[in-house]
Amino acid sequence: MSTGGYTTRVDAGARERALKILHEKFYDVLKDVVEGRVPRLVIKKRTLSNTIYDPERKLLLLGDATFERSFLDLREARKFMQTMLMASIIYEALTQGEYPTIRDLYYRGKHTIRYRKIPSKAVGEENTWDEQAESDSVLRDIEVFINVLREEMLVLSKEKGKVVGDLRIRSGDDVIDLSKMGHGAYAIEPTPDLIDFVEVNADFVLVVEKDAVFQQLHRIGFWKRYRAVLVTSAGQPDRATRRFVRRLNEELGLPVYVLTDSDPYGYYIYSVFKTGSITLSYESERLATPRARFLGVMMTDIFGSRKLGKSPYLSEEERRSFIIRAKERDVKRAKELREYPWFRSERWQIELDEFLARRVKLEIEALASKGLKFLADRYVPEKIEVGDWID
Amino acid sequence: MSTGGYTTRVDAGARERALKILHEKFYDVLKDVVEGRVPRLVIKKRTLSNTIYDPERKLLLLGDATFERSFLDLREARKFMQTMLMASIIYEALTQGEYPTIRDLYYRGKHTIRYRKIPSKAVGEENTWDEQAESDSVLRDIEVFINVLREEMLVLSKEKGKVVGDLRIRSGDDVIDLSKMGHGAYAIEPTPDLIDFVEVNADFVLVVEKDAVFQQLHRIGFWKRYRAVLVTSAGQPDRATRRFVRRLNEELGLPVYVLTDSDPYGYYIYSVFKTGSITLSYESERLATPRARFLGVMMTDIFGSRKLGKSPYLSEEERRSFIIRAKERDVKRAKELREYPWFRSERWQIELDEFLARRVKLEIEALASKGLKFLADRYVPEKIEVGDWID
Repeated sequence: MSTGGYTTRVDAGARERALKILHEKFYDVLKDVVEGRVPRLVIKKRTLSNTIYDPERKLLLLGDATFERSFLDLREARKFMQTMLMASIIYEALTQGEYPTIRDLYYRGKHTIRYRKIPSKAVGEENTWDEQAESDSVLRDIEVFINVLREEMLVLSKEKGKVVGDLRIRSGDDVIDLSKMGHGAYAIEPTPDLIDFVEVNADFVLVVEKDAVFQQLHRIGFWKRYRAVLVTSAGQPDRATRRFVRRLNEELGLPVYVLTDSDPYGYYIYSVFKTGSITLSYESERLATPRARFLGVMMTDIFGSRKLGKSPYLSEEERRSFIIRAKERDVKRAKELREYPWFRSERWQIELDEFLARRVKLEIEALASKGLKFLADRYVPEKIEVGDWID
Repeated sequence: MSTGGYTTRVDAGARERALKILHEKFYDVLKDVVEGRVPRLVIKKRTLSNTIYDPERKLLLLGDATFERSFLDLREARKFMQTMLMASIIYEALTQGEYPTIRDLYYRGKHTIRYRKIPSKAVGEENTWDEQAESDSVLRDIEVFINVLREEMLVLSKEKGKVVGDLRIRSGDDVIDLSKMGHGAYAIEPTPDLIDFVEVNADFVLVVEKDAVFQQLHRIGFWKRYRAVLVTSAGQPDRATRRFVRRLNEELGLPVYVLTDSDPYGYYIYSVFKTGSITLSYESERLATPRARFLGVMMTDIFGSRKLGKSPYLSEEERRSFIIRAKERDVKRAKELREYPWFRSERWQIELDEFLARRVKLEIEALASKGLKFLADRYVPEKIEVGDWID
């Protein structure tokens, strides 16, 4: 491994671990080939029907259904080839000190295989894969097969998540003080499992969907005043941000509050943090934060609730200025959410029913425009203090 | 200003400066009202016809054409009202220690004005503004009118830019060592004019369009090995990233190289860094980096060039795997670029003609997949060394 001496010890260790597991798990396949048996892989199904919500653990998980990918099965031979190709590319990248991205892996494996047809002996051609969707899917199969996330194999990706707070972490060879970022922030690395928490001096984590609102709360000193770790996912959270938040909760014991727009897309962002993503449920076990709490913005924050004995945070006039009419797709999405097991609690049904009755939505920015101090010094701390969040 | 004592001195100073300028520039308007004259604003036109490319300064600039916005002009009265409203909201936010976003400003000003019609005395209603496009446009008018960027008025925004390198900066109350970010990075603040450069130990700036490639180059130690400041805009650059890069070039004298995908969108990202954005030319004077150089990926990197005596970086086989067929919209965009004055150099015409002849494109990731070390240790340093960039 010659990377000019710049690879960190942390990465060197990660490489060794990943290589060892890859070697172990694929060794049997190679043994099959060498000893004349038909090579095959048995992998958990990543289908929707094998995606299960576990109400105990509050997680979306893969069930126990598996499928077999055999080299000599005509329907599976191509996929088998792709899986072995992807494993070998990753193995090679690990030994070579490389840091591929998923787009990279697609390019690295993309080529045309020429072969002799049987019995005609004509030359046939087959592309390894045509679209990145194919190589991505194969990569996911490998993640499930060896039970290792791609990040642990040092596959990098773009990364949107940011954090500030009274927290010291070790990343690579550096110790970074996340309370000394000035007006900027710390951009979370794509491999958050390699971070060490050195010291923490905070009471809770506030995850803000919108980067601009994160900037505002950071700038006004929210995290200092309320001993918070402030995180933004800048929209739909990527894997690294989800894993980072999970570790803050699990390892440091910090309660996690999520603040999103008040609309079905905001609610779903919260549920991706908490429960996992429906189509990628195999990740949830490590990426989801089952104890994450939805702080708002709630429909009942906007309109109050007689049932909950709750007064609204907005006046009639503010509502007139701030609320936005919901679109058809918002309504459709809300109806879908209503049916998800993890939204079936009485408390969530109140919010979703209110949304479907009113058909309006509200952005976090509307609360900031009522006054950043209202958002920072009243809305957020008050709701945390009185426990006005949804589990 | 009560912000719980958490506002930095830097921000307090910025507030004072912005308040002073706002006061000065709008004072005459108020005087007109008080003294019984018709209040009016004279503002530079932000139209395309008043957007001029200055070949000397290599910048897109506003010309000298102005328009008058008078309270008593029926076509302009609404806009006049909007401009005064926006100015007062910003003024209020500055005195209150707030940090609004542009979305925020839209909400803060959004309400319905009731008035008596003349002569019928019926009640009329008029919304201050309906869409954010309206309030944004008014904000731009104010930026042009008082010649101050919104960031200098502490209007925040979401921010995608990141940086690492052997560079110490002061932001807010902190000194931040950008060489000690571990595997993560420093997320640039929305107000990069408030940053102080404390110490720099670098020879050039490499701006990478794609965040994932930034992660790769960072992780493999590129900036340490080649004494670079590594920046990513994560796609189309936002204002803060452009301003930050400009300051690195102008104040620290570091040459700036831009690395994008090889397609018309990549070339345009480069030109936004270098020349400015066509529709927002008034910003260029402060945000553009006229001396920025296009490092690649060039069409002539892919195919070589007999005319330039240049060998290709990719083999025939690599080209087969890596290049992507251009879409109709890419071709259309390339034809537009060909007509822009700042793409009319002989060197750019070679690249654009090659693109139009071949009608293919290439992503930076394709070079990384040839080997991250190829990208980091050969392609980039070699091209810089031999001067294979476009001015």
